[in-house]
Amino acid sequence: MKIAYIVFDGITWLDMFGVYDAITRLKSGKYIPDIEWEFCCFSTPVKDLYGLEMVPWKKANTLNNYNAIIVPGGHGTRKLIQDENFLNWIRTAENVEYKISICTGSLILGAAGFLKSKRATTNYLEYETLKPFCGEVVRERIVEDGNIITAGAVAASLDLGLYLCEKWASHEAVKEIQKKMNYH
Amino acid sequence: MKIAYIVFDGITWLDMFGVYDAITRLKSGKYIPDIEWEFCCFSTPVKDLYGLEMVPWKKANTLNNYNAIIVPGGHGTRKLIQDENFLNWIRTAENVEYKISICTGSLILGAAGFLKSKRATTNYLEYETLKPFCGEVVRERIVEDGNIITAGAVAASLDLGLYLCEKWASHEAVKEIQKKMNYH
Repeated sequence: MKIAYIVFDGITWLDMFGVYDAITRLKSGKYIPDIEWEFCCFSTPVKDLYGLEMVPWKKANTLNNYNAIIVPGGHGTRKLIQDENFLNWIRTAENVEYKISICTGSLILGAAGFLKSKRATTNYLEYETLKPFCGEVVRERIVEDGNIITAGAVAASLDLGLYLCEKWASHEAVKEIQKKMNYH
Repeated sequence: MKIAYIVFDGITWLDMFGVYDAITRLKSGKYIPDIEWEFCCFSTPVKDLYGLEMVPWKKANTLNNYNAIIVPGGHGTRKLIQDENFLNWIRTAENVEYKISICTGSLILGAAGFLKSKRATTNYLEYETLKPFCGEVVRERIVEDGNIITAGAVAASLDLGLYLCEKWASHEAVKEIQKKMNYH
């Protein structure tokens, strides 16, 4: 299992770190010892609204070598859903098994065409924006439709992390990870 | 209000990003428009267990110019609580009004001598380690004793963020921020 976290300028870091924390525990707890991840960007810089940047980034030419892409949200998504070069890069993930998003990350999956006739969710303030991109907007915390898993705003990232731990490892793994994360 | 996030090698990023996300919303929502923060380290690199690094860091000579220090936890704390040079740097925060920690960050506050006769908490696996550093170990999610506020493991960072929003801004602010963060 090799994951690409999609990172971009105007990201909301907590969207990524909730799911990231849970997934690191699949590795450290040896539930999936060979799970790997990279942080992939189309362009730099990769900062949040306040200038906070993370390194290293991989400027991946293509995303088709991963088993999953995870797309966080943030203010930057508003601009990116109109950027055809960026969207063409996201489209290189067409054959990636799991396409996953948090918050407004689903707008990126949608603008890339991955949500056609799919059920999906997003930040509760952006349900109307998501509508034209998907089959049905679902007002739930996590929505799975085939190989597409979308989560709601910010803190739903932690729920998503645990959801993926259960899906990819086991119920026992997720109970232990939830306890270690101290998340109710 | 000027905050120093204390960052170090072996940090658990989610310990910081839960509280960070809430506090950025005090600024973006104009509840405390002039709230500021910096990420302060004693030495570099500043990475988590998996090599993920953030920039920029400030190598601050002293911490006494801040109104609050916020100390996240992580594997790195085990080594740091025996590093007198690092602890002397933390001690430059002696006159800082708020001394705040998440997870095993309280071990650092404790080893620096800030928790003497104080009630405090930490990661539930480290209650015994915290014991000699403080007056009383309290098995709660957030513990406030005078100017010292300590939080439990990882996900308690989000609760702490909201707690500080209520303390520093208002109940109205925290209700709105909690809704935007989508945190129950």
